[in-house]
This record gives sequence, C-alpha cells and structure tokens, in this order.
Amino acid sequence: MYYDPVETMDRAALESLQAERLRQTIEIAKRSPFYAERLKGLEPGDIKSPANITSLPFTTKDDLRNQYPHGLLARPLDDFVRLHASSGTTGTPVAVFYTQKDLDTWADLMARSMYCCGCRKSDVLQNTSGYGLFTGGLGIHYGSERLGMLTIPAGAGNTKRQIKMILDHQVTVLHIIPSFALYFAQQVREAGYDPKDMPWRIALIGAEPHTEQARAKIEQLMHIKAYNSYGLSEMNGPGVAFECVHQKGMHLWEDAYIAEVINPETGEHVAEGEVGELVMTTLTREGMPIIRYRTRDLTRFIPGECECGRTHRRIDRIAGRADDMMILKGVNIYPMQIEQCLMAMPEVGQNYLIELVREGVSDQMRVKVEIKDEYFVEDMRALQGLQKRIAKNLCSEILVTPRVELCQSESIPKAQGKAVRVVDLRGKE
Amino acid sequence: MYYDPVETMDRAALESLQAERLRQTIEIAKRSPFYAERLKGLEPGDIKSPANITSLPFTTKDDLRNQYPHGLLARPLDDFVRLHASSGTTGTPVAVFYTQKDLDTWADLMARSMYCCGCRKSDVLQNTSGYGLFTGGLGIHYGSERLGMLTIPAGAGNTKRQIKMILDHQVTVLHIIPSFALYFAQQVREAGYDPKDMPWRIALIGAEPHTEQARAKIEQLMHIKAYNSYGLSEMNGPGVAFECVHQKGMHLWEDAYIAEVINPETGEHVAEGEVGELVMTTLTREGMPIIRYRTRDLTRFIPGECECGRTHRRIDRIAGRADDMMILKGVNIYPMQIEQCLMAMPEVGQNYLIELVREGVSDQMRVKVEIKDEYFVEDMRALQGLQKRIAKNLCSEILVTPRVELCQSESIPKAQGKAVRVVDLRGKE
Repeated sequence: MYYDPVETMDRAALESLQAERLRQTIEIAKRSPFYAERLKGLEPGDIKSPANITSLPFTTKDDLRNQYPHGLLARPLDDFVRLHASSGTTGTPVAVFYTQKDLDTWADLMARSMYCCGCRKSDVLQNTSGYGLFTGGLGIHYGSERLGMLTIPAGAGNTKRQIKMILDHQVTVLHIIPSFALYFAQQVREAGYDPKDMPWRIALIGAEPHTEQARAKIEQLMHIKAYNSYGLSEMNGPGVAFECVHQKGMHLWEDAYIAEVINPETGEHVAEGEVGELVMTTLTREGMPIIRYRTRDLTRFIPGECECGRTHRRIDRIAGRADDMMILKGVNIYPMQIEQCLMAMPEVGQNYLIELVREGVSDQMRVKVEIKDEYFVEDMRALQGLQKRIAKNLCSEILVTPRVELCQSESIPKAQGKAVRVVDLRGKE
Repeated sequence: MYYDPVETMDRAALESLQAERLRQTIEIAKRSPFYAERLKGLEPGDIKSPANITSLPFTTKDDLRNQYPHGLLARPLDDFVRLHASSGTTGTPVAVFYTQKDLDTWADLMARSMYCCGCRKSDVLQNTSGYGLFTGGLGIHYGSERLGMLTIPAGAGNTKRQIKMILDHQVTVLHIIPSFALYFAQQVREAGYDPKDMPWRIALIGAEPHTEQARAKIEQLMHIKAYNSYGLSEMNGPGVAFECVHQKGMHLWEDAYIAEVINPETGEHVAEGEVGELVMTTLTREGMPIIRYRTRDLTRFIPGECECGRTHRRIDRIAGRADDMMILKGVNIYPMQIEQCLMAMPEVGQNYLIELVREGVSDQMRVKVEIKDEYFVEDMRALQGLQKRIAKNLCSEILVTPRVELCQSESIPKAQGKAVRVVDLRGKE
C-alpha cells in the first residue's frame, strides 16, 4: 500500500528525523563557499527541532544566480554526475548539480510519488514531455524505471506516433503537460478513437499550474484519472509533492524537505491553512543543499489528516506566484484566488478584470466580470442578486468586499498573449 | 588504463567466455515465442566454441517487424523497464525492450567505450543529441553518468545556449552528430570564439556513417580529437564498438557480442579482413536476446593487434549498406569503396557517377569523375596519366578495372535530395 515505510511515520518521529537531517544539511552546506559565509557562526547543534529552521536565513533565486555556477557546491566538482539548468540565453541561469547519490534519492522520491497515486511495476508509462535540461523529462523517466514500470521515452510532439505507441504497448500511465492533455484528447478523437477505449488509466499532469476545473476537464475528456504534482529544479525537480489517490492536495515528502509557508512581505509563517509563499529546504541532498529557498510559489498547507494514512502534510495546488500578490487595505490578495472563486460560478463567462483604485484616502477593488449571455437577462432584480452573490463569494475568499460590475460577454478587451487580469490604477487616476 | 579487465582478456579465454554466454543466450532465447520455434531442436550444448554459431539461423529486420511487439521477449512483460523503437508512423516499427539488468549492462558497455577513447570521471560531457526513443541520447547519457562524468543533458538545437554552457561549465567531451559538428564549428567562430580556446578535447561522433576525411575536417575545424563509434538499437544502441585513442578502427566488445562478417549473397563468412555484412549476436542480454542479426551494415575486421593492448577485434568504419551492393563479373562492389578511393586523390572534384553497362555478353563499369579546374589542363598526356592512375587505384580497391571518364567540374548533373551515385543500365540500353 506504501512504497516506503517513512510515508506513514508518526509526526513526532518524522520531526525528529527532520531535525537530525537538518543538522546534517547545515554541516554539509557550510562546506560550500556561499553557505560558509551565509551561515557563519551558526552551528548544527543549535537546531533542536524543525521549528528552529526560522533562525536560518533565506536563500533566494538571486542568490543562486549570483553564485552561478559553483558557489553552492558542497563537494568537489568531480563528485557530480548531472547538471540541470534553467533555460534562456540571456541573463544568468540557475544551475543545479547532482551527485550519483542525489540522483538515486531523487529517483526514489519519484518512484514513491508515482506509487502514491496508484502506479505499479506492472504499469506501462509513456513520457510525453521533452527531455534535456528540463527536470520533468529525466525526473519522471528515472522514477518510472526505479518503480519498475516499462518506460517509453516518447518525448514531446508527434501526436500520431504517440497514439500508435499507446495502443501498441497498452500504455496505462501518461506523463503529460496539462495544456497538452486537452489538445491530445482532441487529437485522439480526430484519429477516430474514443478515449473510453484507450488503455490508459492515470495521467501525471504536473509541470504547469492549473485549476481544479482544468483537471476535471482533462479527466472527463480523456476518461482518465489525473494527478497533480509539484516540483522545481532547485529542489531536484518533480517529486517534491504528489497527490495520492484521494486527490485532496499533494503530500509533500517531509523526510526529504522541510516546507514552510510564509507571508512574502514579512517573512513570518502564516497561520496554518493560510495561503503564502512556499519556502523549501533540502534534507537529503549531499551535493548542493539549499536552505530556506524562497520558491515564490503560493500555496497553503491543507489542515487535517488524509484518508490514505500518509502522515506527510499536503499542500494545495499552486495559487500563483508571490510576485503577483496585491495588497489592499493591508490584506494580501492573489489574482488566482479571485479567478477560482469566479470560475466556480456557472453564470460567469470567459473573462474578468481586477482594477485597484484609490477613492479619497481609501483603496478599493473593482472586479469587472463577464456574464454568460443566457444569464444576462432584462430582469434588473436578478442581475443585482447575481452581483451581490459574486461580491459575497469574493469577500469570503479574499476578506475584502470588491465592487462588482457585470459585463456582457466579450465586452472586456482581450490582451494579446498572456492575459492581463490586474490593473493597478492607484495614484494614476 | 582500462575500464574493465575483460578488455585485455587473452583470445582463448575470451572465446571460451563467448561459447559459455552463447549457450546461455540460446537457453534464454528459446523462452521467447519466436526463438522457441526458430531454434527448435537446437540444444545449447551443441555449441562448443563461438565458431559453432554458423549452425544457427539468421535473424532479419523483417523477423523483428513480424514479431512486433512481443515475439522476441524471453521474459514476462512486467520484467521490462525500457522500450526504444524505430521512428516512423507508417509501417511496422521495430521495438527493443530492456530489463533493469540489460540497462545496467548497456551503461557499463557505454562507460567502457568512453573510457577507451580517453574520457575520465573528471571530464564534463555535454550531450548535444536528442533524447527520446533514439538510443543515442539516453545511451550516452547513462554511460556518462556511469563513468562518473558531470553530464549535461543539453539535447539538440539552440546553438547559442550550447556554446554558453560549454564555456560556463568547461565542457571537455561533446557527444555530437558528425553533420552537426561541422555546422557547430562554424557557429562557434561566428559567435566570436576561436575553437582553439574552447575547453573541449574529445568529440564522440558516432550515430551517422562518415568518412575518414569528414573526421579529419571535424578535428581540424573544432580543434578536437574525434572518435568514431558503432551501435544500433537492436544491439542496445551505441556502445557496440568504439575507437580507442589510436583511432585505428573500433574495438567491438566481444564479451557482450559475437560479430561475424558475411557475404550478404551467400551468407558465408568472408575471408579475414574482407568487407561484408556485419552479423551480430547478443551475449549478455537477458530480456530480448537476438541471434545472428543481419545488420545490413558493411564493414570488415581490421587484421592484427591494436597498440592499446585491448584484445577485442576492431571493425572498420561502416562502408555503406548491404542493400547498396553491386555485383560485377561475380565480384561484390560497394559504392563507398569507390567514393573513398576517389576522394583520396587531390585531383578529384565534388561529384562522380558510376554506370553499369552491358557490352556484348560482358558487364562493364564506367566511372565518370569530375576533375578540379586547376587539374583540367590542356596537356592531353597529363590527363591520360591521371585517367590511368584513377583506374588503377580503383582496380586495386574493387578488383575490377572500370572505364574512367574525366569530366569538367559541375558537368555531372546533381540529383535533388540524396545523391544518385550508381546507375545500372544493364539490359536497359
């Protein structure tokens, strides 16, 4: 039922393991030029429990860039066997180095993650993501082989061949990027197949943030169970957190990482269950440990225990980037919160726009919302009711009551490229 | 000096090891549906020495296609963790399956191969080939990690980023496809770098047949040592045979494979040192053994011992495909033999054409050869001398004296796409 007994370890033992590994991590990290300086005066013995991690300084993406390429290496370069790097030819990239032991640990975490959502040795996995410097490709690949699944390194593209291989080899697990999944489902239908008749049963759909609605659509169109996951190359790659079969948040592997959720403005921990910036510390990496890494990803711990019996806490799907945060009347608000709230209402159409304005000495939020044609009726009272319900739903999510304006469909101008959802007009009106 | 003691094993012990492993291979192979039938009545004990392999039937690419996907599997599908397949959406592909042990054996062969041409743990390898179903990408990748080199899975394309990573990470070994190497050298110069100042020292340039001249050009333009290798996915992928630092042919790993060179018409072994079709048998594959596989690749064993001390015999660079063979006056001739002979003469230009004609009851070969402008002089006697020298050089290579016609440069029509080098006019004139 579990890949590794550590998954159900009781919390006290797990936290004691975290403290022990955090001490080791500090000791190892101090062998790198960067942490030798950054952790000066700090002794591993100062750590009595994982809660003491707050005494350590943060590490940011800029730190990684400034230390490129070797500043965070805690061992001689000869000891490393793999390098992944962020893409881009301009600017300084971020590079992550792995020893063989680091690759083994990562492959084990990946295998555990896939087992957790129902993958087994007898499954056949087709990896439809690109390989190369992107950790998603090789990460899933090594984990799949480690679990003993027959692994097909199909790579990206060539939809026709993908379909042929899925049928020829009775593929039961797909690694597929969410935005490709919807296109792929369409292609399968156009090739004359009913997704119901495809051999697949599990889609691993991490790599891109997506909504619960998008997952539901993938599951329905592909006739598959789709499992969300979380990872980033600074923390190895995929396999940091993974959904179990209950699909109620992603178990974050706390024997391998310490996760914190902070207020990105203050750096303090948010209250349990509140959304904030995820901060991650590696506990099992020997080559390039990273301490209190500011991921800029927004999420929250899901309170309570999971039915699956795993004791590792769950994080919620990524609710956006810390860089997108708005502050209104002292409250932190993320556009994704508003989107999720709006998209859960059947009357709401495709587009919306958030405007921040100053009225006198006070800041206000206006939310313009397109309403589907069939709900845009003449009955003034019905529209006012809808308007109030939207405002109430938003207030319960973001703790601020916005002014809601209902608009006809396609009346909000569409942006070229990435959608513009927030316009801050404060001090500009 | 060697990666594995088996590389210098004396021939008698090596052949005894081959016989033992061939017996095991037959025993395992007979568990597959295909070989259960094909090897019916044949007992492993019938094999006393590797020479007895001639009593076994050949396996062809058509056999692999007809048995697609599972006919050659000697174990339950659950035991396999990797699949590679030939590309193409039309026609039946060829699929090769690997167990974890098969992947380990292959990674070891790859590591041995790279060590053989001078790669060491302290090297940094950048893999510029595509990954996915093509065995070249993951094959080199796993071998590089196995050897302990820092491995950068750059993948194909994005020349600018490739150059940046080579410089940032002081890459010493490149895996690069020969045709890309020449383009890449040019790009490096255009980016303002002198190849002499690049950190690299070794290029692994298998994957595409190429001439000794092409290698020399790569070495000169890139200021690098370029090593040839041989492999095919039916025999795992790359790492079947690899050049040592002496660059005088590729050591074929005879503890892992039995290689034969046959006359593709008769199926009989050619005399030692003669060119023919390479036939390969796996000796260490547990999942999908293949016996006496007709590779259609033309090569020869290089007689004599190598200065490096390895006892495994060397094969020459691939001289073309068995399917290209011409028969003239009972002699087998391959276009590549003629090309190599012509291109070694400084007077010969870019293009040539081989015509086979019937004159009375006898077949003749005409070779039209473009001569560089500076050699195309008025002096009739000099031209006749050149003509005779070309004919004589060709005769010593192909054992038939062709009629040589000298042509001015660009007088032989160029084909669209793949060059047409042979025109068979026999019975059509």
